[in-house]
Amino acid sequence: MTSAQAELRKPVPFDTALLDKLMDEAGMDVIVATSKHNVQYLLGGYRFFFYENMEAIGTSRYLPAVVYRKGKPEQAAYIGCAMEDWERELARFWPENLELGNVGSPATAEQVVAHVKRIGNGIRRIGVEAAFLPADAEAVLRRGLSNVEIADAVVPLERLRARKTPQEIGYLREASERVVESMLSTFKICRPGLTKQEVAESLRREEVNRGLVFDYCLIAVGNSFNRAPSEQRLAAGDIMSLDSGGNYKGYIGDLCRMGVLGKPDSELVELLDFVDDVQLAARKPIRPGARGGDVIAIGEKLVQASQHRTYTHFMAHGMGLVSHEAPRLMTLPRLSYTGYDTERVLESGMVISIETTMNHPKRGLVKLEDTVLVTETGCEGLGDSGRGWNIVGE
Amino acid sequence: MTSAQAELRKPVPFDTALLDKLMDEAGMDVIVATSKHNVQYLLGGYRFFFYENMEAIGTSRYLPAVVYRKGKPEQAAYIGCAMEDWERELARFWPENLELGNVGSPATAEQVVAHVKRIGNGIRRIGVEAAFLPADAEAVLRRGLSNVEIADAVVPLERLRARKTPQEIGYLREASERVVESMLSTFKICRPGLTKQEVAESLRREEVNRGLVFDYCLIAVGNSFNRAPSEQRLAAGDIMSLDSGGNYKGYIGDLCRMGVLGKPDSELVELLDFVDDVQLAARKPIRPGARGGDVIAIGEKLVQASQHRTYTHFMAHGMGLVSHEAPRLMTLPRLSYTGYDTERVLESGMVISIETTMNHPKRGLVKLEDTVLVTETGCEGLGDSGRGWNIVGE
Repeated sequence: MTSAQAELRKPVPFDTALLDKLMDEAGMDVIVATSKHNVQYLLGGYRFFFYENMEAIGTSRYLPAVVYRKGKPEQAAYIGCAMEDWERELARFWPENLELGNVGSPATAEQVVAHVKRIGNGIRRIGVEAAFLPADAEAVLRRGLSNVEIADAVVPLERLRARKTPQEIGYLREASERVVESMLSTFKICRPGLTKQEVAESLRREEVNRGLVFDYCLIAVGNSFNRAPSEQRLAAGDIMSLDSGGNYKGYIGDLCRMGVLGKPDSELVELLDFVDDVQLAARKPIRPGARGGDVIAIGEKLVQASQHRTYTHFMAHGMGLVSHEAPRLMTLPRLSYTGYDTERVLESGMVISIETTMNHPKRGLVKLEDTVLVTETGCEGLGDSGRGWNIVGE
Repeated sequence: MTSAQAELRKPVPFDTALLDKLMDEAGMDVIVATSKHNVQYLLGGYRFFFYENMEAIGTSRYLPAVVYRKGKPEQAAYIGCAMEDWERELARFWPENLELGNVGSPATAEQVVAHVKRIGNGIRRIGVEAAFLPADAEAVLRRGLSNVEIADAVVPLERLRARKTPQEIGYLREASERVVESMLSTFKICRPGLTKQEVAESLRREEVNRGLVFDYCLIAVGNSFNRAPSEQRLAAGDIMSLDSGGNYKGYIGDLCRMGVLGKPDSELVELLDFVDDVQLAARKPIRPGARGGDVIAIGEKLVQASQHRTYTHFMAHGMGLVSHEAPRLMTLPRLSYTGYDTERVLESGMVISIETTMNHPKRGLVKLEDTVLVTETGCEGLGDSGRGWNIVGE
């Protein structure tokens, strides 16, 4: 603990030495975080419940902000809305500087400007999250801090979050297991005639009744590759995939499991076995010190060597508070990400989602998605049950 | 129907004549909507399910956009992400121009620029939602459309949404009734020893199991005015308020009901009767043609004339896809809104939330919040049950 931290009444809930190092590398004196996920992370798990799902208020929006100055946690500030004074009473905040006076993105930015001016000299470069900073708030920042350069802090912030703490791993484990349990319960109630929309709604309730926040359900049925919930009905003999995200305290469980309305024939068994082989092979290199890109290389190699290569896609990506985050193992421009971490090594506490998606031209979509934790010595699947064919209705 | 609309394969799901008039008044040639609520409205109820709860993807975010040119619905465009091609297959979109190629806020803005350039000359002023347009997307717009002025379209868009259609009224009715039913079920399971957090979680499940999306639960217990869910436990004799938002197809039910662990004494009965009197008096002027500000005037007058004036607050506001929207009947700078509609008249189909909050110094928080529809001849409460003291555990 630095002497600066010792002055704070509450401990800083993240690795300030790491953040300071990442800010040094990025040449940033101050970071202003405004996305829900980074605000939560920097506040040690706190999300203001009232705006967890909503964002609009008045003719503007709720916009929380955490201001962090490199090496000076005692100068950190949290800017929230007036109702968050209840959370202050409950001692939920570690920053000593709290501005909980008003609502709206320009108002938040005014408070950021005032705080940065207050903490004074030597601030030349501020990192922001441009995709999560509304245009009207950015305009206030640029006007109020005209001598300061504004840069992008997304990559330093996601590198800060890449290695999960034991508590975060516990949350991801809970999320993964509960998502899979919810899927297996949903498969049990499926029957011919139900619509994909009804199945998705059932999965939503299963997740919420297990204490998760439901994020989404992708569902493909029969030989269609369309994964939007719709009025399409399940029919005898159909295969179906459930690919759902649900979060526990913000940490996402994101897995895919397969069901079949009937018994899987030998071809179906073979197809899912192939997908499973790719999934398990990709786990093999995973350990601290392994090159990140090797996870991709082994998965892609198996797919390319198979007869299924033209319709099978392999991918892997870090996950946590965001469904795709560091480590970033591959470059996918259409998903707006770059393989920053392909040549870097994996570290214990990283969590990787691995997915193999086969759009089989005759049989439909056959997919598994697993969540894999990098442990001290290798890796461990989180929520690893139900990975074979689940017989629907049983 | 204009000749332009006749050329479209699907009908435009909103009142284009009204939007054109509002754009005329605001001097706007094009509107680019990027908030979830306005995208949903302009697309006739469509929300892309995958990003209903999440927003981050890659190192950017999901950002949908609807581009609408005044008087030319055939030139409208929707810009979404690649996965929304499934929704296109399901014929969910009315705009003829769909760009569903990629993810990330700058990518969306590039598509907006390309579309605006394509539809050509004479576009001088574009309305955007500055609080819902990320800074990086706005930078792309300004760079790509350097001859075009950018203005704020929030007020025209919320005026467009102010009068609800019968379908929207149906959704608001369902949302309101189901939120109240969920509260009454939650009161039944309450007992001394439960924490506020446990009660809020129970309400969340009750709402989701009734088909709602849970937004939030404000809860005060005993004589505390702190309404954040916490470890505070219910105790015999406590009063409690549940003030929750839950939405049905995006339309918010937002009501407050009171419970008591025991029997309410005569003072409690009197206090809630007073709150109820204010609530019902404020409904009296509500009818098409009434001045909006009269709803506020009558509520505030009753409060000011009472012995409870120093700790009782009255407010009323339009609601729908957003919890506070047009008609805007009062100016509250801390909530970022202005009483634009105080001097305007109410119209049938408007929906107003009315709330009276008493922070009684000895007895705690006593509050009712109701949802009131402006009908052709007067008004009607939506979800009007459970407005007295609900005996907890019964």
